[in-house]
Amino acid sequence: MKDFVYKCTGCDKTYPGPGPLYRCKQCGEPLEVVFEGDKTISQNGLSDQTMIERYSSFYPFDKTATELSLGEGFTPLVKSRKNADKYGVGWVYFKNESANPTWSFKDRGSITGVMHALETRYKAIGTVSTGNMAASVAAYGARAGIETFILVKNNLPEEKINPIAVYGAKVIKVNGDYGQLYYDSLEAGRELGIYFINSDSPFRVEGSKTIAFEIFEQMGMEVPDHVIVPTSAGGNIRGIFKGFRELKDTGFADRIPTIICAQAEGCSPIAEAWKKDKRKIERIENPETIAHAIENPFPPSGNEVLRMLKSPGGFCVSLSDEEILEAQKDLAGEGIFVQPASATTLAAIQKLQKDSYWTGSEKIVSILTGSGLKYTSVFKKMNLQTYSCNLKELKEQLKEMQN
Amino acid sequence: MKDFVYKCTGCDKTYPGPGPLYRCKQCGEPLEVVFEGDKTISQNGLSDQTMIERYSSFYPFDKTATELSLGEGFTPLVKSRKNADKYGVGWVYFKNESANPTWSFKDRGSITGVMHALETRYKAIGTVSTGNMAASVAAYGARAGIETFILVKNNLPEEKINPIAVYGAKVIKVNGDYGQLYYDSLEAGRELGIYFINSDSPFRVEGSKTIAFEIFEQMGMEVPDHVIVPTSAGGNIRGIFKGFRELKDTGFADRIPTIICAQAEGCSPIAEAWKKDKRKIERIENPETIAHAIENPFPPSGNEVLRMLKSPGGFCVSLSDEEILEAQKDLAGEGIFVQPASATTLAAIQKLQKDSYWTGSEKIVSILTGSGLKYTSVFKKMNLQTYSCNLKELKEQLKEMQN
Repeated sequence: MKDFVYKCTGCDKTYPGPGPLYRCKQCGEPLEVVFEGDKTISQNGLSDQTMIERYSSFYPFDKTATELSLGEGFTPLVKSRKNADKYGVGWVYFKNESANPTWSFKDRGSITGVMHALETRYKAIGTVSTGNMAASVAAYGARAGIETFILVKNNLPEEKINPIAVYGAKVIKVNGDYGQLYYDSLEAGRELGIYFINSDSPFRVEGSKTIAFEIFEQMGMEVPDHVIVPTSAGGNIRGIFKGFRELKDTGFADRIPTIICAQAEGCSPIAEAWKKDKRKIERIENPETIAHAIENPFPPSGNEVLRMLKSPGGFCVSLSDEEILEAQKDLAGEGIFVQPASATTLAAIQKLQKDSYWTGSEKIVSILTGSGLKYTSVFKKMNLQTYSCNLKELKEQLKEMQN
Repeated sequence: MKDFVYKCTGCDKTYPGPGPLYRCKQCGEPLEVVFEGDKTISQNGLSDQTMIERYSSFYPFDKTATELSLGEGFTPLVKSRKNADKYGVGWVYFKNESANPTWSFKDRGSITGVMHALETRYKAIGTVSTGNMAASVAAYGARAGIETFILVKNNLPEEKINPIAVYGAKVIKVNGDYGQLYYDSLEAGRELGIYFINSDSPFRVEGSKTIAFEIFEQMGMEVPDHVIVPTSAGGNIRGIFKGFRELKDTGFADRIPTIICAQAEGCSPIAEAWKKDKRKIERIENPETIAHAIENPFPPSGNEVLRMLKSPGGFCVSLSDEEILEAQKDLAGEGIFVQPASATTLAAIQKLQKDSYWTGSEKIVSILTGSGLKYTSVFKKMNLQTYSCNLKELKEQLKEMQN
C-alpha cells in the first residue's frame, strides 16, 4: 500500500497505517483515513473502468484489484420532476443504490475493505451485521476466495440468514448483546488475524466516498444543494461527507452540499442529540421502527456525525413509521421499490416542505440505500389491492376497470 | 416515430408500423421490427447517457425519453478466471442483469415497450406475467404515469403478487389457461386500446438488443465466441441475436457469436424440438422445474428460436434441477446470487465440458437474467449451514472454525 495515516475524527490524533485500526486509543472516537496524493478524475466514460479504477487516485491502494470487482457502483441517478414539483424544489434526484451487486450501497465499502485486507495480507475477514452488510461482505469474501465470518444476532430468522449464508461464508449466530458484539468482534479479530470490516470501519467509510464522486460526475461536475442520507451506524454519511470534502479540497468542487441525516423516530439517537444540542449521543433503550436497516440504538460513529453536521454543515430529521411507509409507496409509484430505511429520504423532503424549509430552487439528492426485496414483511402494512376474474370475462373486467 | 416495418420471423411478410403488432396474420409466427437508418455507437462513456440515448440510432423512436429512464442497462460484465480455469476455456464473463432497476433484464424491454406505447399514443399498457416482467412493466408504467394492467395466474401466492402490486398497477388474477391468456390479452388490448407488452412482443425484443450492444462495448468492441441465454418465451434470446446481427450488418462487428439456448429439463420445449430436429415446438404437458422464470410450456417465439439457432447459428442445452442448483451455489460462491433460471448458463458450461465441447480458448458470456432475492423458496433445497455461540465464547468459536 501507499503511505497513509489514520486520524481520529474526535481529537485529531494520528496513527500510522497500513494495518486495520478502528478507533482512537486516546478518546475512543472512530478513525478515518488520510491519504495525501495527487488526485485526478478520469476523462473516460463512467463504465469503461471499475469503480476503484476510476477513483484510484483517492486511495492509498497499490493495486486496482479489477479481479475483485463485481461491478459495484456507477448506480443510476434518477431525476424526478414529479417530486420536485410536488414539494416545490428545483430537482429531486434518486441515487439508486439497489442497483449494486448485492442490491445495497454496502458493496462500495466491502470492496475497499477487502482490498485493504488483502494489501495488508490478512487471510480472513468478517463483519457484524443482520442485513445488507452481511450479504455484501459474504459476497466480496467469496469473490476474493478469502475465509469469511459473518456474525449475526441469535434470533435472526432463517429468511434473513439464507441470503447471507448462500455466498458460502461461515455464519455464526451470537447469543448476547448485539451492540457489544461490534467491539468484541474487533478485539477477537485483532488477536486471531481476522479483519472485521464493520459498519463504520475507516476503509468501509472510504468506499462510501464514491457515492459523492459519482453524484458530482452525474450532475455534470456540479455539487447538489442538499444530500439526504438514511443514517444508522454513521459510516455511509461519513463517507459521503468525506467524498464531497475531498472534491472541494482537491479543487474539483467549490463547495460541499448541506447534508441531511435522516433517522426513524423509533430509533434516532443522532437526531435526538442534535435536537438537544448535545455533543454525545445516548443509547436508545427500546428501538422500534419498520426501517430495520437503520435501527441502530447506539451508532458507533454517532458523535462524529454530530460533529460533521455542525461543520462543514447539515442537520437531522427524524421520520415516523407512517411517514416512511407513505414515502416508500410514493417511491414505488414512480417505479423505484426501496427498503423502508431508504424511504426516510423522501419522507424528509416532505417534512421539510411542511416546515417551509425549501426556497424553491434546490437540487436535492436522496440516497436510496437498498432494495425493497430485502424487507418484504413491510407488505403486511401496505394493504395492496388486487382484482380477479375468469379468463372468459377478461375483456369485460378490463373495460370496467379502465380509467 | 420514424418509419419502420414489422417483418414476420417465419414467412418474411411485412406489415407497416407504427402501431403495435405482434404476430403474422398469414402464418401466426412472431413479428420483429425492421428499422433502416444510419446506426452509430457513441464515443461517450457508457454512463454519460441513458441506455436508450446511447443506442438511439438503432431505434425508430422520435424521442430518447430520458424522463422515463430508471437507469436500466449498463449492467456489469464480471470476469471469472475461476470458472474459466475450472472448465478449461479462455474466459467466462457474467452479464449480471440483476443490477437493473427492478433486478432483471426485463427493464430493457419494458422501457422500449413503454416508449412505443407513448409514441403511438396509447393511454394504457399491460402485460401477462408471474414474475420479473410483471414487476418491470408495473415499474415503468408507474414511471410513465400511464394506466397499467398486470394479468397474473389465479393461484399466484401473495409473496409473488406484492412486489408487483407495490408499484401501483392494477393487478388482475385471471382464472383459466395461462398460455391462452397471452393471446386473449392481445385481443382484448386491441379492442380496448391497451398496449400489452408481453414476453416476446416486437418492441420488447428491441430492448433486449442492448444486451448484445453492451457486451460488445464492454469487451472492447469484440464479439464473444459463445453467449448462453436462459430461454423461456424466447423474447430475450431473439433480442440478443438481433443485437449481434445488427452490429454485424452495420459493420461494427465482423461476425456474430454462437448462441446457446439454455432450458430446464423439466420444461424444455425448444431443446426437445431441437434434439429431434423439428421445425415446430410442441407443448410440454406437465412442466416442473425449480427454474420458474423459464418454465414456459409453449414459448410463443419457440419456432423462431429454432430458426435462429439453425442460422445464424447456435444450439440448445437442457439442464436438470440438480445441475441448476449446483451452478446457483457455485455462482454465489463467487459473489453472484442469481435466480435458478440464470444458473442454467453456468450449468451449461459445465455440461458442455463433460461433452468435451470446449476447445480451450473460448470467450463465453453467461446472461444472468435476474436476482436470487426473487426466488427464495429455493433455499429449502440448499441445506445452508450456520453455527452459533454465546458472546463470551466468541473468540474460542472463531478460533475453532478458522482454517
